[in-house]
Amino acid sequence: MGKFVSFGEVLMRLSTPGASRFEQARQFNITYAGGEANVSSALAYWGHKTAHVTRFPDSPVGRAAAQYLQFHGVDISNILYGGERIAVYYLETGSALRPSQIVYDRYHSSFAELNPADFDWDSILKDASWFHWAGITPALSQAAADALLDGIKTANRLGIPVSGDIFYRSNLWKYGKKPSDILPALTEGTNLVIANPINLKDIYGIESDSFIDGCEKFKAAFPAVTRVVDTHRTSISASHNLLRAYLWNGNEVLETKDIEINPIIDRVGGGDAFIAGLIHGLMTFNDEQRALEFGVAASALKHTIEGDALISTEAEVEAIRQGDITGRIKR
Amino acid sequence: MGKFVSFGEVLMRLSTPGASRFEQARQFNITYAGGEANVSSALAYWGHKTAHVTRFPDSPVGRAAAQYLQFHGVDISNILYGGERIAVYYLETGSALRPSQIVYDRYHSSFAELNPADFDWDSILKDASWFHWAGITPALSQAAADALLDGIKTANRLGIPVSGDIFYRSNLWKYGKKPSDILPALTEGTNLVIANPINLKDIYGIESDSFIDGCEKFKAAFPAVTRVVDTHRTSISASHNLLRAYLWNGNEVLETKDIEINPIIDRVGGGDAFIAGLIHGLMTFNDEQRALEFGVAASALKHTIEGDALISTEAEVEAIRQGDITGRIKR
Amino acid sequence: MGKFVSFGEVLMRLSTPGASRFEQARQFNITYAGGEANVSSALAYWGHKTAHVTRFPDSPVGRAAAQYLQFHGVDISNILYGGERIAVYYLETGSALRPSQIVYDRYHSSFAELNPADFDWDSILKDASWFHWAGITPALSQAAADALLDGIKTANRLGIPVSGDIFYRSNLWKYGKKPSDILPALTEGTNLVIANPINLKDIYGIESDSFIDGCEKFKAAFPAVTRVVDTHRTSISASHNLLRAYLWNGNEVLETKDIEINPIIDRVGGGDAFIAGLIHGLMTFNDEQRALEFGVAASALKHTIEGDALISTEAEVEAIRQGDITGRIKR
Amino acid sequence: MGKFVSFGEVLMRLSTPGASRFEQARQFNITYAGGEANVSSALAYWGHKTAHVTRFPDSPVGRAAAQYLQFHGVDISNILYGGERIAVYYLETGSALRPSQIVYDRYHSSFAELNPADFDWDSILKDASWFHWAGITPALSQAAADALLDGIKTANRLGIPVSGDIFYRSNLWKYGKKPSDILPALTEGTNLVIANPINLKDIYGIESDSFIDGCEKFKAAFPAVTRVVDTHRTSISASHNLLRAYLWNGNEVLETKDIEINPIIDRVGGGDAFIAGLIHGLMTFNDEQRALEFGVAASALKHTIEGDALISTEAEVEAIRQGDITGRIKR
Amino acid sequence: MGKFVSFGEVLMRLSTPGASRFEQARQFNITYAGGEANVSSALAYWGHKTAHVTRFPDSPVGRAAAQYLQFHGVDISNILYGGERIAVYYLETGSALRPSQIVYDRYHSSFAELNPADFDWDSILKDASWFHWAGITPALSQAAADALLDGIKTANRLGIPVSGDIFYRSNLWKYGKKPSDILPALTEGTNLVIANPINLKDIYGIESDSFIDGCEKFKAAFPAVTRVVDTHRTSISASHNLLRAYLWNGNEVLETKDIEINPIIDRVGGGDAFIAGLIHGLMTFNDEQRALEFGVAASALKHTIEGDALISTEAEVEAIRQGDITGRIKR
Amino acid sequence: MGKFVSFGEVLMRLSTPGASRFEQARQFNITYAGGEANVSSALAYWGHKTAHVTRFPDSPVGRAAAQYLQFHGVDISNILYGGERIAVYYLETGSALRPSQIVYDRYHSSFAELNPADFDWDSILKDASWFHWAGITPALSQAAADALLDGIKTANRLGIPVSGDIFYRSNLWKYGKKPSDILPALTEGTNLVIANPINLKDIYGIESDSFIDGCEKFKAAFPAVTRVVDTHRTSISASHNLLRAYLWNGNEVLETKDIEINPIIDRVGGGDAFIAGLIHGLMTFNDEQRALEFGVAASALKHTIEGDALISTEAEVEAIRQGDITGRIKR
Repeated sequence: MGKFVSFGEVLMRLSTPGASRFEQARQFNITYAGGEANVSSALAYWGHKTAHVTRFPDSPVGRAAAQYLQFHGVDISNILYGGERIAVYYLETGSALRPSQIVYDRYHSSFAELNPADFDWDSILKDASWFHWAGITPALSQAAADALLDGIKTANRLGIPVSGDIFYRSNLWKYGKKPSDILPALTEGTNLVIANPINLKDIYGIESDSFIDGCEKFKAAFPAVTRVVDTHRTSISASHNLLRAYLWNGNEVLETKDIEINPIIDRVGGGDAFIAGLIHGLMTFNDEQRALEFGVAASALKHTIEGDALISTEAEVEAIRQGDITGRIKR
Repeated sequence: MGKFVSFGEVLMRLSTPGASRFEQARQFNITYAGGEANVSSALAYWGHKTAHVTRFPDSPVGRAAAQYLQFHGVDISNILYGGERIAVYYLETGSALRPSQIVYDRYHSSFAELNPADFDWDSILKDASWFHWAGITPALSQAAADALLDGIKTANRLGIPVSGDIFYRSNLWKYGKKPSDILPALTEGTNLVIANPINLKDIYGIESDSFIDGCEKFKAAFPAVTRVVDTHRTSISASHNLLRAYLWNGNEVLETKDIEINPIIDRVGGGDAFIAGLIHGLMTFNDEQRALEFGVAASALKHTIEGDALISTEAEVEAIRQGDITGRIKR
Repeated sequence: MGKFVSFGEVLMRLSTPGASRFEQARQFNITYAGGEANVSSALAYWGHKTAHVTRFPDSPVGRAAAQYLQFHGVDISNILYGGERIAVYYLETGSALRPSQIVYDRYHSSFAELNPADFDWDSILKDASWFHWAGITPALSQAAADALLDGIKTANRLGIPVSGDIFYRSNLWKYGKKPSDILPALTEGTNLVIANPINLKDIYGIESDSFIDGCEKFKAAFPAVTRVVDTHRTSISASHNLLRAYLWNGNEVLETKDIEINPIIDRVGGGDAFIAGLIHGLMTFNDEQRALEFGVAASALKHTIEGDALISTEAEVEAIRQGDITGRIKR
Repeated sequence: MGKFVSFGEVLMRLSTPGASRFEQARQFNITYAGGEANVSSALAYWGHKTAHVTRFPDSPVGRAAAQYLQFHGVDISNILYGGERIAVYYLETGSALRPSQIVYDRYHSSFAELNPADFDWDSILKDASWFHWAGITPALSQAAADALLDGIKTANRLGIPVSGDIFYRSNLWKYGKKPSDILPALTEGTNLVIANPINLKDIYGIESDSFIDGCEKFKAAFPAVTRVVDTHRTSISASHNLLRAYLWNGNEVLETKDIEINPIIDRVGGGDAFIAGLIHGLMTFNDEQRALEFGVAASALKHTIEGDALISTEAEVEAIRQGDITGRIKR
Repeated sequence: MGKFVSFGEVLMRLSTPGASRFEQARQFNITYAGGEANVSSALAYWGHKTAHVTRFPDSPVGRAAAQYLQFHGVDISNILYGGERIAVYYLETGSALRPSQIVYDRYHSSFAELNPADFDWDSILKDASWFHWAGITPALSQAAADALLDGIKTANRLGIPVSGDIFYRSNLWKYGKKPSDILPALTEGTNLVIANPINLKDIYGIESDSFIDGCEKFKAAFPAVTRVVDTHRTSISASHNLLRAYLWNGNEVLETKDIEINPIIDRVGGGDAFIAGLIHGLMTFNDEQRALEFGVAASALKHTIEGDALISTEAEVEAIRQGDITGRIKR
Repeated sequence: MGKFVSFGEVLMRLSTPGASRFEQARQFNITYAGGEANVSSALAYWGHKTAHVTRFPDSPVGRAAAQYLQFHGVDISNILYGGERIAVYYLETGSALRPSQIVYDRYHSSFAELNPADFDWDSILKDASWFHWAGITPALSQAAADALLDGIKTANRLGIPVSGDIFYRSNLWKYGKKPSDILPALTEGTNLVIANPINLKDIYGIESDSFIDGCEKFKAAFPAVTRVVDTHRTSISASHNLLRAYLWNGNEVLETKDIEINPIIDRVGGGDAFIAGLIHGLMTFNDEQRALEFGVAASALKHTIEGDALISTEAEVEAIRQGDITGRIKR
């Protein structure tokens, strides 16, 4: 099987240790992560060849970031170097009724200021069997949006399946364009879409009275779309969540049961782990229900691991999918 | 608005890291805290001018203690230096069915051996709009009790509201006086009293058949008292508590609902955060019920933060007061 | 009262800090522990004289291991030095639905390659009042099994009570013998047996339709056995367990209520703490029910403490036994 | 005496722990520092009232930065909040023949994008007795240069002495202006200048054949200048340096002996500590030679302290100035 | 051979990590140490039976202190429990020209407030072959001085050699007695005295024009004294020292060469390690010169180890004594 | 250019933090390293494609080890999984006159118990341009020696240059063969040999009166050898070394000047970094003298970096080679 290729910004994640508030912290824990790269990382642990495409500053810090992806087993040979700075996000991990806080510092990044012409998509996607993007990329800059569109079109031309995590946050769009200006063209070339009804309405103007209704209208507008998935999280506290997911496959909506996570070690990256699990399932099992459950199990497991990345074996996720959530010691 | 001035001992808090027992610990985490100073610290984060009055040894350790209060934004210009030692308390944080343990080493401290004549209360309270004390101070030494009485009388003379946290622990009183010898005179000049029916009986000899009954009799004895407040904690385990509070305002008893805290990160200082929240509410809102709820929300939030001090914004506390306890990530 | 003497391998325990996975860990926390030594450690904290008998390599690492037992108050003067290596186990602590993982590296250890002739059991057990072993020892090597049998026989000859924790893991037996080849001879000299019905069947071929039935048949086969005990754990998650225990005393089966542990700090060593608590109770109280409850309370407390060893006072365990599980701060 | 007021950017300093390279680091140590603020911090420890003027983002991270200055005793009431981001510098501390490395990420900072009109210099400098700036500020943006010029002119108008650390790094000037376009106007209002002959030539076009010759020509061009100071560092390795300083006072050049520092704990901030020590000396002693020596002693001491800030008592610096460099324990 | 018994206060040592100043430290490293106990600890590592006699508070903190001595292999069965508090010393480790700083908090300690009648010296010294004391003990309180005198007299009566480390610090004597009131009686029963000419003059009024002259006059006054030893330290910086020692044996003065220590890891406890090494040599070798050199080698090695205690094998010290100071890796 | 391929055991390195002795350490720092893999790691940082061939247990610990090499950029696709355990070495880092200590636990490792038939050397070396081995491998087991000989012969057949680090430690050879039984056959296929005159004599029986004489006789015996290199270390202390190197190229002996390293951060891996630097030079520069100097500079730099691996850029090493050892900050 070919490579899973993801494209997007990778940020330095600086998180306060333990339960420290920003004011108290005298150290930050360092990892490097981004929504799309997190999917590649998780898949690499399950034996997939994966590559991430991004741009870092040409500095020891930029090289350390690339090396961190390499540590997870992700191919970094298509990463470009240049520009001013690495994007950063500061994380304070919440507990009980105190929420986690994220402060972004991502403007003017090497990625946002990339030159679309520098990416040779035909070469990058030569051996690929999947291409993945997220809605953060086109929010960052016109250049990032353009490079992404090039990538999607190349994937379409080469017959490579494309997944897109819509992940819409209105406050990210600062360069003058609106999501509705940009996302439709990207969606046209996308087969698996991670989105919820609110996204469908806010971005594509699709009003719906149910998830299935929305998906059908969405398919009508974007015929390339073959599946739409969504997760639902019940937040009892920052330490205690329930999670389930839905998948519309053109015919029906599959869903999972709630899985309980208590206590949560690290809340960030849960959505990306879900996507990784789902895509792994779709690539590996001939069973959409099982793939969806594998995604939810992967996401639940991610909540018990520090950092954005899901570090796990396939067997660990599968055990949870099959209902072994007793946590008995493995010797 | 003027300064909030607190008076009392500040201890070096030496806590074992994580879940370590004293026998296991090879490091202590260091903070500096005291019941009264904790109130000043919390209020400083919400934009109040606050000052703490205490006495430290004239050593690098004493200066480090003062600097720690300054870090929280508390004015330290009225702190005196001299005497032998800083008081210390050793803390082992409990978990599940294992309780937290505190070992005090507070005798012969610079504070307990202060000279009342060294405090120029007229100058200290010149710009003050509130004066706060706690029942630990008069338990430490006659000198501390005398200095406190001077402070209260000066506040009374200058028309500054006075709050007192009775916080009675019988085993602290070792210098020959009983609480009933000393506390009544201090209470006479106090307007807001934090006390429970057991305190009223043990210290002031007030027998009551309900909280309201006790408060009314207390008011009869101490006419300056305008409000009495109390909190009620349900301890399910060292990691899981419920908290609510009561306020008698001369007419009626207001109360809050229970708020659930699970897991608890740091149990110490919860009462002080309640007092800070309540006083902030009384100074800021024209709504006693809301002030009481703000106090409980502040206290609940404190349980999720390491150290005695509540480090928070007003908005964070207010969100909890309004019921947002889902812990969803703030971006 | 004489010494409590335990015999068995002590491993270096290397555990990942906090919630780190093996892949993430850049540090290991170090303790030294073994099922039998853990019982001696726990008893030493409650005032018993205890000694552990084992074999370490003659290296700084071997000496550090012995010194760690000495730290807990266990006499190390009968430890032998020689052989190649210290056994190691790697531990990754689980959380919520992620189980703890243990990777053993215990073959070719100094202990497994001991020479039975080097142990002068008459001297070792001269002042002993109890001898304790576990089923791991005979699984490691014929030499270890032989040395253990010598120890048990010496204890029998000297009239010292013997306890044995059957603790059967089939995958440990790699040197050519089966448990049913070796364990019966060891069991013949044992008075207090920790075992469950599955052990009785798999090792001794005892089919039973209830715990009491199995125990009676077991007693028929091994007349020296006076008591059989077993614990039952309900695993809700890696962070949340319930625990209870059973004791057959020749006449009847005593049992305890479930005790709830949430959150669990460290799952390993819980069984050893139970045995320590039970034996302490049997040696100290004239009340088997109370001894059994003390064992369960000790085990529950252990789950809140990092490391294999239960570090506690008798009063702390007794408070839990009496039902004080509220975790209120002790000052 | 009035306040010492400094103006300039404060960066989050993220340094790798111990001897870690960027690639190895999984934590950063966090402090907040800037050349000008470092002078205020050092002076605050010696009892001066100091205030720093800067601009931070209005976020928990920006507030944490301000609070860090407050911890050192610096008045933060004139700090403005707004803009996008806090400037960051990443530090890897060198050792032996491996140099320290600094990676700056300071563009688009809240400080660089300040609005000069937001600073009310008359109010800021109302109680000031000294104003300090550095050559980094005008390198960042026209806005920063303009605000600085306003500050200097206000100080001149109010008769407040002004010091300027020329500290010229050509690679910082990226907004279109050259140092020679901007620095002369700032220098016109400055009395104490920290500069070396290379600065004089590169920025002001002053060719000289000795330090004294350069200073005299500089004075001819900028009559307000009353003193020029320079330090000379001999770098034997990243761990071992010698340091001395020169001061031209209009008449002659004073100089100090070399002081040896081995090993160096933290190389950054040494120049700022020198300036603080010199200014303290000029404000406090009536002896320029002693002031210069105090500056060198302060700088040497700084090299033994982690972080950019010199945390010390005046007595500690004075002891080194007097030649006590034996490091004997103080009890 | 019998036990080496030491008597004296054990303090909790709280040291700032790495190069942190007190103001910066957010953790303290914890060890427990005292001049006399340090000698017992060092000797225990070389195979001697040792016991320390002291008094701790009856609290988890007091028990942790005793357990720390037990960790080093020191018998703790003669330690008494009671009184108010454990003595503490705060340590900031210096570097280069910045000296280490110690802040003592040792008054009112459980040890200082001991009751001499509680020590059953006949039982304590029953199996002893050496008794060791230091001049700090009689400085703390009359009770401590009295208990010490009882111990010395008992040792004399039982024919046990006695060593005393005069270690005179005038500022410790606060209870009304002068060293010259108390030390002579203690010295009368002492055989090996660690003292320098300044001690001889200040305490005993012995004027001398050389070390040998002073020792001979000292012997004349205190006929039990058989040896006097002294060390000489050259402090190049806090990180770099030279060390040598002198021994007067009644006939002549033996001396060692300087040994160089660079860098110093931990300066505290160097004198105690010297005493331990010397006593080990005197007990083990029939060669005073070699014993003196062993003492200096032990002291030099101590400077490279964190904490007050010398953790080493005899072979390690002997290698240094024989001149192997190249630090080549031992595999 | 093709891949640099190394073959050899990779051990888990467990080092005590800071200056801790084994007895004190409660944490180990974890890296994974081996003499041959260290060469591949260093080369990967300078842009070479490198691959390491070894065998790990099929466990989370084995996978973490492989992932650590991947982090350094080394291809791990030819690593085999199986066998019992990962080899371990315990490291205590020395300081001043206290040497570093290494305790090996490397027997029965997955690598030592490899099956030579499992390595498909034609496939492994298909794209290789260099093959590197060390004398530790044949010391471990006959199987390891056999697999290595297969690798060397395959490299010879494919015309790939071969380097061998003789690195002879007599105490490693425990399986019955002597170095002189095994090493000659391996040396026959090796072109670049790292060895000193003592190795030549002890292993190959070559007596010589100078380095050049030994090399010429060695060449006579092993005609494939084209270069012999050796380093010389002057150990002033564990913290302070000098280093230089010699290269015999068939005609003459080139040598470098001494380079000074003070202080040393981590002594281990210095020889491997030298080999990496030399090989990089030989592959990249057409200048043997420069290559030799690059090797020494690489080795010196390694001493300032924690862990066995040299993490550096080519430019950093080249700067040191050119004599920039002043350690001035790089911004």
